[in-house]
Order: sequence, then structure tokens, then C-alpha cells
Amino acid sequence: MHSVDLNCDMGESFGPFVIGQDAALMDYVSSANIACGFHAGDPSVMNATVQLAVKKNVAIGAHPGYHDLQGFGRRELRLSAREVYEIIVYQVGALMAFASSAGAKLNHVKPHGALYNSAAKDSTIADAIAAAIAGVDRTLLLVGLSGSEMIAAGRRAGLRTASEVFADRTYQNDGSLTSRLESNAMIENPQTAANQVLQMVSRKTVTTTQGKEIPVIADTVCIHGDGKHALDFAQAIVAVLNKNNVTIKKP
Amino acid sequence: MHSVDLNCDMGESFGPFVIGQDAALMDYVSSANIACGFHAGDPSVMNATVQLAVKKNVAIGAHPGYHDLQGFGRRELRLSAREVYEIIVYQVGALMAFASSAGAKLNHVKPHGALYNSAAKDSTIADAIAAAIAGVDRTLLLVGLSGSEMIAAGRRAGLRTASEVFADRTYQNDGSLTSRLESNAMIENPQTAANQVLQMVSRKTVTTTQGKEIPVIADTVCIHGDGKHALDFAQAIVAVLNKNNVTIKKP
Amino acid sequence: MHSVDLNCDMGESFGPFVIGQDAALMDYVSSANIACGFHAGDPSVMNATVQLAVKKNVAIGAHPGYHDLQGFGRRELRLSAREVYEIIVYQVGALMAFASSAGAKLNHVKPHGALYNSAAKDSTIADAIAAAIAGVDRTLLLVGLSGSEMIAAGRRAGLRTASEVFADRTYQNDGSLTSRLESNAMIENPQTAANQVLQMVSRKTVTTTQGKEIPVIADTVCIHGDGKHALDFAQAIVAVLNKNNVTIKKP
Amino acid sequence: MHSVDLNCDMGESFGPFVIGQDAALMDYVSSANIACGFHAGDPSVMNATVQLAVKKNVAIGAHPGYHDLQGFGRRELRLSAREVYEIIVYQVGALMAFASSAGAKLNHVKPHGALYNSAAKDSTIADAIAAAIAGVDRTLLLVGLSGSEMIAAGRRAGLRTASEVFADRTYQNDGSLTSRLESNAMIENPQTAANQVLQMVSRKTVTTTQGKEIPVIADTVCIHGDGKHALDFAQAIVAVLNKNNVTIKKP
Repeated sequence: MHSVDLNCDMGESFGPFVIGQDAALMDYVSSANIACGFHAGDPSVMNATVQLAVKKNVAIGAHPGYHDLQGFGRRELRLSAREVYEIIVYQVGALMAFASSAGAKLNHVKPHGALYNSAAKDSTIADAIAAAIAGVDRTLLLVGLSGSEMIAAGRRAGLRTASEVFADRTYQNDGSLTSRLESNAMIENPQTAANQVLQMVSRKTVTTTQGKEIPVIADTVCIHGDGKHALDFAQAIVAVLNKNNVTIKKP
Repeated sequence: MHSVDLNCDMGESFGPFVIGQDAALMDYVSSANIACGFHAGDPSVMNATVQLAVKKNVAIGAHPGYHDLQGFGRRELRLSAREVYEIIVYQVGALMAFASSAGAKLNHVKPHGALYNSAAKDSTIADAIAAAIAGVDRTLLLVGLSGSEMIAAGRRAGLRTASEVFADRTYQNDGSLTSRLESNAMIENPQTAANQVLQMVSRKTVTTTQGKEIPVIADTVCIHGDGKHALDFAQAIVAVLNKNNVTIKKP
Repeated sequence: MHSVDLNCDMGESFGPFVIGQDAALMDYVSSANIACGFHAGDPSVMNATVQLAVKKNVAIGAHPGYHDLQGFGRRELRLSAREVYEIIVYQVGALMAFASSAGAKLNHVKPHGALYNSAAKDSTIADAIAAAIAGVDRTLLLVGLSGSEMIAAGRRAGLRTASEVFADRTYQNDGSLTSRLESNAMIENPQTAANQVLQMVSRKTVTTTQGKEIPVIADTVCIHGDGKHALDFAQAIVAVLNKNNVTIKKP
Repeated sequence: MHSVDLNCDMGESFGPFVIGQDAALMDYVSSANIACGFHAGDPSVMNATVQLAVKKNVAIGAHPGYHDLQGFGRRELRLSAREVYEIIVYQVGALMAFASSAGAKLNHVKPHGALYNSAAKDSTIADAIAAAIAGVDRTLLLVGLSGSEMIAAGRRAGLRTASEVFADRTYQNDGSLTSRLESNAMIENPQTAANQVLQMVSRKTVTTTQGKEIPVIADTVCIHGDGKHALDFAQAIVAVLNKNNVTIKKP
């Protein structure tokens, strides 16, 4: 009998600017990665999203990114390791306070966007992130790309880690995600995505675009919340997991 | 034998923009109110200031303000009570995380600038601030204007409070601060300021601009850190308190 | 034979955060008030919106507001007259440059949100705005609430002015807009709104919520672009105006 | 008889955060590069600085940078060419409006910090900057690193260009600036800097750290305004130029 965590990036609205369908998606996921005001989210959105997660019994996570609202944290900003450490401490603390004020506890931290990508490849950035999380609270769970420097850094820092895979991204033979510049980077069909998730969880493998079945560690599966069909994907994945007796649960 | 807390607003630099003389002033005060990135301060400045306070054994406080860097949090921004609650939770959490990561504990919260002034007079704003602080951590100490709505709101919320007086501001017969629009609002002479502090602490009174001696509660004395003569004032006050056997200590 | 300008607030998206249906609405209006990056809009959105307006032969206007993205410029920020002057010069200049770079010319300026409301009532703020516009370019057209201090200030500054009325707002006997706190502040029915516009343009009157027909100057009619039914309103208004031989044209 | 332009980065204060000694330096330079609110400066600072330049008969230039106040525009931010184009149009327009409102004309544009450095090496970025400037006003002068891609791009775009050299930086045999990571990157002695400027202007050469005299085009000399000894450098340079009959004049 298998189990897996389903996570989704949430709380990415800002003031009157709405992104995502948080209320609807909260019914399907077990973990919410909540933006912390730097790449998205504001104190009001953070508060509302944390309260929604508490109500739906979804694990609350911080989703810190670069301080670049216009670029949504997706543009690379060259920061020193110390600066990365500091923006993580700041954002994790801010979200942690909303969790406290809602009578809940912060469960995990998952870096966002360009910072997530840098941390996957650059051990200096990854170590800075892990040190920041450990500095704030050693019991926090670190979520990072499966097989990446981020996971290795988390272990070096003595943190619990959750290896993340993607429902709607394809993989290469070396275990990396297919670049978004490639036409086949994304899985467009909800059913295909659901089947990939099932394989990752039950067989602990993924079939690459080249057709090879390679091993993968899938502690938590990312469902994108900002696409038009986000809800279709969530429903398809949950249906397939339920049908195959895979329990969806918080880490 | 009397004792009092000396506090100073610190960590108000931003990036390469330097304000204040934190390192020098840390030797004279017992509490630091550290800006949280909204009206001043950035994650790097917050980190450095918290570490300095730890090193100097100075109590660490959060100094949250309106999100208005250009106006330094001194321009009134009409926020709802809920929005005030949310910006306080956010900023207190961010600073708390830097305290944790430095192996220390957040001691107090003191609102800044226009928010401080609004909270002194407007019980709705004051209650929102107190609720936010209590929501994050009920053991935090709330610092507000002596005799103000902020202190009353703190008590209603079950928080410990510290009534703040000013070393270099003059007082009116009704106990209010002389408006800064008046020419005699500020005490320019360090020795005069030091004597006012001594009177406030030892006699629990202040002599108003009209010459009347009125009662005042002085749990903590604010020393301004951004003026040219900030250090002169700090030294004069500490000297007078020491000479008169008033202990300077954290709340 | 009558004519009128139809204007709409546009370019209010920010980075990946989309607000409004600019492309669709551009077909119905003669003037676009384009956000300038302070309450909404960013350089990329401004550029795209200006280019769209040029393509659709719609008059390009600057829509400056308070620097408060989270509050969308709708929260009052207490600025000095000088500060108001300066934020107007800055924003008008930024949009003017996008017009130049698109081979077009800036036509008008309309203050946004809380700044629009302050300028309607407060002659000091209104004069600061008018002086800023005149300082940048004396040939610019100033758009403000019909019958307000903004229009008076524009005339004092020697600017051409356009008195603005609202298609979907109701009016009081004294000529003011019904407060949004009242349940009957908004006109919900597109046909009713269209008829009100026709009456304003052809009879130069509006019928108040109390049933009285009062005179109104309607040089330009504001159509809201951010509601769900924005397009329905635009279509209904244009249809009624066309049917009654009212020409829709740039000022 | 030789002449040269002396330029200085100015208007880099922000709100209450003061950087530089603009008022004092305005007496020594012929051109001011004024920050436009993205890496430094705010509408109030821009207004005051433009007015100061007008009063002192100093040429007004825009000094646009990345939108990164904390990093002062010195941290690399990966933008697309289109985004670079757009942030330049925006900032140049904003400063141009302050010049207009002060009865003056914008003279030149010089990119700042990390953007300046990128534009010196990357022709795509350089072309985007040049296109933006030409788009706003073809008569503007583009200031860029002497011998760099920025100057080449300006020429491709049909702009007038001014090749910039530095008074207090040392040069390598290939004409590049010595990296700031090297201990001998900066000239610490004002007299040495002044002599280097004289050589650059009168002999059109510079002596490298390796001791070789190489040709250099020096249309404009940058004097740094933010160091402690900025004024000493300015005075020494002006004295040496005056003594050698080199006229300091706007381009």
C-alpha cells in the first residue's frame, strides 16, 4: 500500500490581482506551498490562504522566491549566498507567523521559480537555503527537486527532505526535467499526467521521453495551480490514485 | 532603587542607504526596535542588526510600519483593521525568524511612525495591532505611547505592555506630546533630556511646557538614533542614570 | 448632432497578473487611460497597451495613481502637494515616452482611484496635479470628475479639460456620485447605463436616484473595464449611441 | 586646445536615505546622470536634482538601472531584450518629464551599474538600450563605456554617443577596466586620478597597470559621487584640467 503527498503552489494572488483557483484546489491536495510576498502574495493573501489550508486540513508550507513581483520570481537575480540565506529567513518567518496566528504550524518550505532552479544545480545556493531553514526551525521539512543539489544540501544541514516530482512535466534519461524550451516538456493530457504520477508512486520509476524507464524518488508530487486546466489535472490524478489505493497524505 | 529600559529604533538602513549609528548606540541601550523591511530595513540589515543586538546583549524587538519606504512609514496610509493586523503579523514573523536564526528570542514589538501615532489614538487600529501580536506569540511585550490607546489595547488583548516616554520630546498638561509643529516640541540639549528622563524614572512625573509637574508611566525611554547628536543624547542620559543609581535593563 | 468620448481604464495588469479585457474593449472606446506602474501596470504592460491603442486608433492617456500596488491606488495615502506634483510628473513622463516610442502622442491625463477622489474635493491636491500636467506639457488634456475641484484646477492652470461622467454610477440631487456604500450606487443593467449615457450626452442632464433631472457636463464617459460584464456595458452603450446618431470620438 | 565633459552619478538618494553630495559636486561637473527611481532616486529626489542641475547649468541626463533598490542596481537581473527596452523607455520618460517641468531639456542617457556592465559586453542588451533611447528621442546622447558594445549599438541606432572613461579606475592592456576584484582596480590618490584624466584628454591615451600606453577615446570622464573623498577627486581633477587649459564643458 502506497501513499504520496500532493502539493500545489498557492496564495499567488496580490492585492486585487488574482492568480490560481486556491479554494477549489485545496480539496485535492495535501500540501500548500504559500507565496510569501516577494514573487507573489501579500500579507492579506497569505493570511487568507493559511486560514483556508487550516480549514481544509492541508499542510502549510512557505514558498519563498526572489523579490521580483513583475517577473513572478522567474527571472534569475544574482544574489550572494548570504543574501539568499536572508531572503529565506525573512519569508519563512513571515509565513510562520500567519500559521501561528491561525493556530497552526508551518510544515515545510519549498523554494520558488528561478530560486528553485538555481538551488537544484548550485550547491552554494542550496546550502544557503538549507541553512536558513534550519536556522529558523530544524523541524521544518525541505521540499526540493528529486535528485537535486537542494535535496543533498537539506541532508547536509540535517533537515528532513521531500523529493519532488512533477505530474505534468516530462523527464530525460539522466533524470532531469525536459527543458521548457522543448515542445514535449509538458504533459497536456490529464490522464497521461495521472498515469505518470501513479507509476512514480507505485513503481518508483518514470518513463523518459526517450522511452526508458528510470528510477525516481517521489515523496511529493507537484500539481500546477495556475493553468486553465489545473482542476482537471488535480481531479484526474486524485481519481487514479484513489482507484489504485494510493493514499494522499501530508508528509 | 529604580530601573528603566532604554530603547532605540535600529536597523533602519536599506541596501547601500545608511541611516543611524546602530553599532555605536548598541552600547548605551537595553532594547533595539528593529525595522522589518516595510518602512526601512531589508533582510540583510535585519540579520546584521539582530546579530549585533545578540552580541551586545540588547533585547530584540520588531518595529513594524506601513509599507512605504519612500515616506519612511511616516505618511498616513488608510488601512482597514484587518490589513493592519496582517502587516503586523507579517513583519513580526519576519523579524522573529532572524532572532531564531541567531539563537535568540524576540522580546517586544513597537509600531513605527504614522502607525504608532494612529495606534495611540485609534482603538480599532490599536486592537488590530494587539491582536496580531497576541496571534503570533502571547508572550511578546507590546511597547506603545504611555497613556495611549495602544497600551489599553495591549491590556485588553492580555499582552504585557511597556509604556514608552521620550527623552527629547516635551509634554503638555494633558500628558500628550507637544506637536512637532510647535517650536518647543523637541529638547535640543542632551543634559536637559537626561534630566527629564531621570525625573520620569525616579519621580514618575514630567514637567510640561506650561511648567506643571504631571504623573507619567515610564517603563521604557525612547532615544532617537537618527539625529546628528544621537550619541550625545545617549551618553548624557546613561551618565545621569548611572550617577543616580538607576539601572538600565531590558524589560 | 452630438458626439462624446468613451474612455476606459486600461493597462492595469502587472507582470503575470492579468486584470481587464483591454484587447476586446479597445474596439468600443475612443480613449484609453493607461496605468503608469504605481497602482497597476508595469513597463511591459504599458508598452503593449500603448501599442494596442495606436493600432486601434484610440487616444492614449496617462492614468497616474498613488504608489500602492497592493491597494490598487484605492487606499488614501497622505501626500504633500509637492509629493503629488512629483508622482504625477514621473508617471506622465513614463507613459509619454511609451507613446513617443510607438510613434504616437500622449493625449490626456486622468488621475486614478483615491487620488482622483481627493483631487475632486481638495483644491490643493487638484492644483498640484494640474501644475504637474502643465509642467510636463501644456497641450495635454486633463480628465476629471464633472463639476469637481479637479476641473476647476485644470482651468486655473490653463489646461484644456474634459468633464467625466460615469455610465454605471448613479447621481444625487447635488450632482455628486452616490456613495459606493449605498446599495443603489451602481447601475447593474447595461441597457439602463446606456440610456443614462444617451441622456447625459443628448439632453445634458442626468436623472438622480431621487428622480430629479439635473444638468451635467459630459465631455467623456467612463466605462469600467474590470468587471465581469464590462464588455456587455460597452456594447450596449455603443449600440444606443450609434442608434441615436451620437458620434463616439476622441476629444 | 582640449575640452572634456565631466559627469557624475547623482540623485541617488531615496526618501530619507541620503547618498552622495550632489549640491557640492554640481559645482565641478558639466553633466549629471540622474537616477530614475529603479535602483535609486524617487520622484522627489529626481525633481530636486533636476532643479539643482538647471540652476548650476549642468547637463541633465537619465541614469536608468535595474529595478532593484536594495541591490542599488548592481546585482545582475536576467531580463529579456524587450524588458530592457521597456525599463529604459519608462525611466528615460520619467526623467525627461522632470526636465520639461523645470524648463530644461534632457541631454543624455547613461545606463547604470549591472545594466551598464551588461550593455558593455552584450550587443543584444546594448541594442535594446539604444533602440529605447532612439524610440523616445533620437536627439538624445548615449553615454557608454569607451570602446564597448554600448557605443557600437548607439552608432547602429543612429544616436550620438559619448565614450566614457573613469578618473579613478585603472586599465588593462586590452583597454578594459581592471576588475574590481583586483587590488589595483581603483586609483586611491586624487592627484594620480587627475593626471590620468589629463593624459586621457590631452594625449588620448591611458597607461595600463602593466605600464603600456594605449589609445583611449575620452569624450566624458566619470567622477564617482558616492565615496568619502568624492569632492577631493573632483577638485583635484578640475584643478589639473584648468591648469592645463582643458575646458570642462557639456557635450
